[in-house]
Amino acid sequence: MAEFSTDTRIRRLVRADRETVRQILEATGSFTAEERGIALELIDEWIERGEASGYITSVIEESSEQVRGYICYGPTPLTDGTFDLYWIAVDSTAQGKGYGQQLLRRAEADVRQRGGRLLLIETSSQESYGSTIRFYERAGYELVARIPGYYRPGDDKLVFAKSLADVG
Amino acid sequence: MAEFSTDTRIRRLVRADRETVRQILEATGSFTAEERGIALELIDEWIERGEASGYITSVIEESSEQVRGYICYGPTPLTDGTFDLYWIAVDSTAQGKGYGQQLLRRAEADVRQRGGRLLLIETSSQESYGSTIRFYERAGYELVARIPGYYRPGDDKLVFAKSLADVG
Repeated sequence: MAEFSTDTRIRRLVRADRETVRQILEATGSFTAEERGIALELIDEWIERGEASGYITSVIEESSEQVRGYICYGPTPLTDGTFDLYWIAVDSTAQGKGYGQQLLRRAEADVRQRGGRLLLIETSSQESYGSTIRFYERAGYELVARIPGYYRPGDDKLVFAKSLADVG
Repeated sequence: MAEFSTDTRIRRLVRADRETVRQILEATGSFTAEERGIALELIDEWIERGEASGYITSVIEESSEQVRGYICYGPTPLTDGTFDLYWIAVDSTAQGKGYGQQLLRRAEADVRQRGGRLLLIETSSQESYGSTIRFYERAGYELVARIPGYYRPGDDKLVFAKSLADVG
């Protein structure tokens, strides 16, 4: 973490973090109530069942021990070595500090260690104009598929992918 | 159903059908043990929770009341009007009778009635060579996305889609 000016720590999410993450999801304004509900369901699965849930969930906290963001990912069922990034969010007051990229890089390292070779991110074309696309491109992701009208008419599903094989 | 020579009936799956469908899934030889396990999990959700499960499951039976195939589909979470076809299987002894197409058309009609406008089918490029691709193309589906190496290196995910809007 020495490469960032603010000291941070990434660790697994525990039950005590749930309310903070719920607030972060709400404050970003990027998610609908339904989306936040599903994000919290995955978190609850992780809290209850740990790795068996299939949803590995970590938070990033500043030296103050204030949690500022989280990431949720896991092995894609029925695949050999593919993982999905299910959710990532950073507190609106802590944007621009590279916390999202830190969370993502740590997740990629963890996926590699688990034998993962491909990490996928599904997102909406409506959400993805601008900053979200740039975020993933900066992290080395490539747009590999688009499903027209997936979310609603005019709102496509975009699938970004990064190959983790043969990368340091 | 008058358009087929064998009289058939399509109805919702009930608990008593579970073992027959389990045998059909096994006998086709098209599914791994893991895939069959997931197919049965969805069926169990449907049996336990009905429509609330999100997995609408129907069987096709011949006039002998012998169940010969099944289909499982449901609304795609976080979308407005998109549905996924999760599973379809026809008994290996009853192939070539059009049962798969019957199940699919009935599912499409049901999806339309529920306000669905898009039906998606995800499949493996390895499985899909030949008969599976032809099955979906004959039913009016179009290949809209391919995710390279999704299932394993060299085995891509294919996404077929059919627009159900403005269709009789």
